[in-house]
Parts: sequence; C-alpha cells; structure tokens
Amino acid sequence: MERTMSARERLIQATSHLVELQGYHATGLNQIIKEGGAPKGSLYYYFPNGKEELVAESVAIHGQAVTEQIRKALANTTDPAEAIYAIITYVASKFEHSDFIKAGSIASVALETAHISERLRKVCGEIYMAWRSAYESMLIEHGMMSDKATRIATLITASIEGAVVLCRTYRSSEPMLFIAEELKQLIEQARKQV
Amino acid sequence: MERTMSARERLIQATSHLVELQGYHATGLNQIIKEGGAPKGSLYYYFPNGKEELVAESVAIHGQAVTEQIRKALANTTDPAEAIYAIITYVASKFEHSDFIKAGSIASVALETAHISERLRKVCGEIYMAWRSAYESMLIEHGMMSDKATRIATLITASIEGAVVLCRTYRSSEPMLFIAEELKQLIEQARKQV
Repeated sequence: MERTMSARERLIQATSHLVELQGYHATGLNQIIKEGGAPKGSLYYYFPNGKEELVAESVAIHGQAVTEQIRKALANTTDPAEAIYAIITYVASKFEHSDFIKAGSIASVALETAHISERLRKVCGEIYMAWRSAYESMLIEHGMMSDKATRIATLITASIEGAVVLCRTYRSSEPMLFIAEELKQLIEQARKQV
Repeated sequence: MERTMSARERLIQATSHLVELQGYHATGLNQIIKEGGAPKGSLYYYFPNGKEELVAESVAIHGQAVTEQIRKALANTTDPAEAIYAIITYVASKFEHSDFIKAGSIASVALETAHISERLRKVCGEIYMAWRSAYESMLIEHGMMSDKATRIATLITASIEGAVVLCRTYRSSEPMLFIAEELKQLIEQARKQV
C-alpha cells in the first residue's frame, strides 16, 4: 500500500516538477500550491523563507534521489562503458516518454540562479559534484587513473546536462543517444590504455 | 572609428547580455530598455510583438555570430583535435574573464522556453544545429565517416552547453578545461581508426 504523501512532500514534488519544466523564475508559489494540492498555510509553515528555501530543498532532495539511482546503476557492474551507456539510454527513454520534461536535470535552476542566489548555486554545485563522484569512483574502481576518471566523469555529467537542452529544443532523444554511444566508446578506449 | 550602434542594435545587445546572465523570465522589458539606453518607444517600434520577438531576434543574431566564430576557428585547420581544443579553451578563458557570464551559451533561454514558445524553441534548435554542423563538416573534411562525425559534433555541442552550467555553478572554468582535454583525445582516437 502506497503511503500518502504529506503536504510538505507534495509541495516539494510539485516544485521539483514545475522547476524542471519551466525553470525557477517562471514558477510561482501559487502555482506550486495548486499543483501540490496543499493548503496555502502549509507552504509558509514548512518554508517560512519562501521560494528560495523551497526550491533549495526540492533540488537537494531530487538531486540526492538521482545520485542514488546513478550509484545503484553502477554498483557491481563488470563493464563500466556498458554501465554508462545503460544510464544515458535510460535517461533518453524516460525523457522521451515524459514529453521531454523528466530527465532529472537541474540545469534550468542552476543557470537561472547561479548569479542571484548563493544558496541555490551551492546546492546545485553539491549535486553536480555528487553525480560526478559517482561516475568517477566507479571508473577508479575499475582501474582508471584518478585524473583521467575525474575528467571523464566531468564529461559525462556535462554532456548529459547539455544533451537535455538539445533534446528539449529538438523534441527528440537523438542527441542523448548520440552522446551515449560516444561516451561508451571513449570509456572503452580509455580502459584499453590503462 | 567604431560605428555608433542604433537603438535597435543596443536593444538586441542588452537583451543578449541579460538573457545569458539571468534567463528569459527574469529579464523584463524595462530592464532591457534601461540596459540598452534606448528610448522606450523604440522597443515597441522595432519589436511590436514584445519580448518573445525581441529575444528571438537577439538569440538568432547572437547564435549566428557564434556560428561564424566557430567556422572561422575551424577553417584551414590541419589538426581537428587541436582546433576543437583551442575553441573550448578559448570559451573557458572568455567565460572566466566575464565572471562566468559570457560563454556564448543559449542554454538558459532554450531550457526556459522550449515548452512555452514554439518560436523560441525553433530559433534555439536552428542555432544548435548550425553549431553542430560546423564541427561535423570540419570532421568530415578531415576524413571522418559521416555518422561518427555527427555523433562527435553532437557531443561537442552538448558538452560545451553542459560545461557552461557546471562552470557557472562551481564558479570555476575547470569543467570546461576537462571536457576540452577529453574531446581532444576522443577526436585523436577516432581519427586513428579511420
């Protein structure tokens, strides 16, 4: 039996969805309350500091959930190149089936807020670092030199976020599938050189 | 002697700057008028359809200028891997010296508007396609198979846009430099396999 979500959880889920769809500035508190089906008072009760606080919390929770998914997908893999390929093609398929909304990206809020909110910039930075670390650790475990693993993990993180922009703009998952293929080959090549 | 910019050009330049810095929704028409130092009437005279029209024109002009820069940097190169490396490290340096604002990215407006404006989605899509084509043509000219060139050109375009997000979030050009290095090696490897 599924547990009923609390008003706080519903507000966070609605924020996550709306911010990923339309960005930080376009998302208003009234829209979040409506989408979350939560009483207005609950927003001010749980998030007395308003939108910045609510978005920071929603980005952190959403980012942590994605980190866990990445870690789980990479755990016990025997083939790093295939594991990365599987993750990116999964993102492509999820994205395609949600009308190019749900890729787990935080790029929109990161871009819009880096110059106006230290709090949001830091939350986004920590999440990107956690995603990169998950890829990096897996590559190091499979014998890659630390510097090389850091660079490839950065390329994976950056190119997925960038491919989200291209896929959304083209309304096609093709860019995500292209980068999946190239990153797979890059990791295979890098491992041959170890 | 530098030609004085017209009110129309000043409005477009101000829009380009503000949209790259803070995104589409956060940028208001009054702010554009103020930043551009243009009379209010000129905005409605040149762009009677308002913000969407002005941003579409500004993104198109800015995107075309970046396409020209890419083409120029790639023309007559003898080493495709080095040429791509030089472009990306140039972006990193320009970005760093502008307090992580000016990378020539259109990611913010692309992400914020893909679901609300067909006009802006299409303009952004055309620009990304032009950038990709510039990389792709150069790789094909240097003997790469067309499919492979398309995938690598997509990876270059996506990873630069994604690295803009990471650099802005970390306030560091390190992610851009990391992807420059990895893409250089990837192109060198791919050319050996031709």
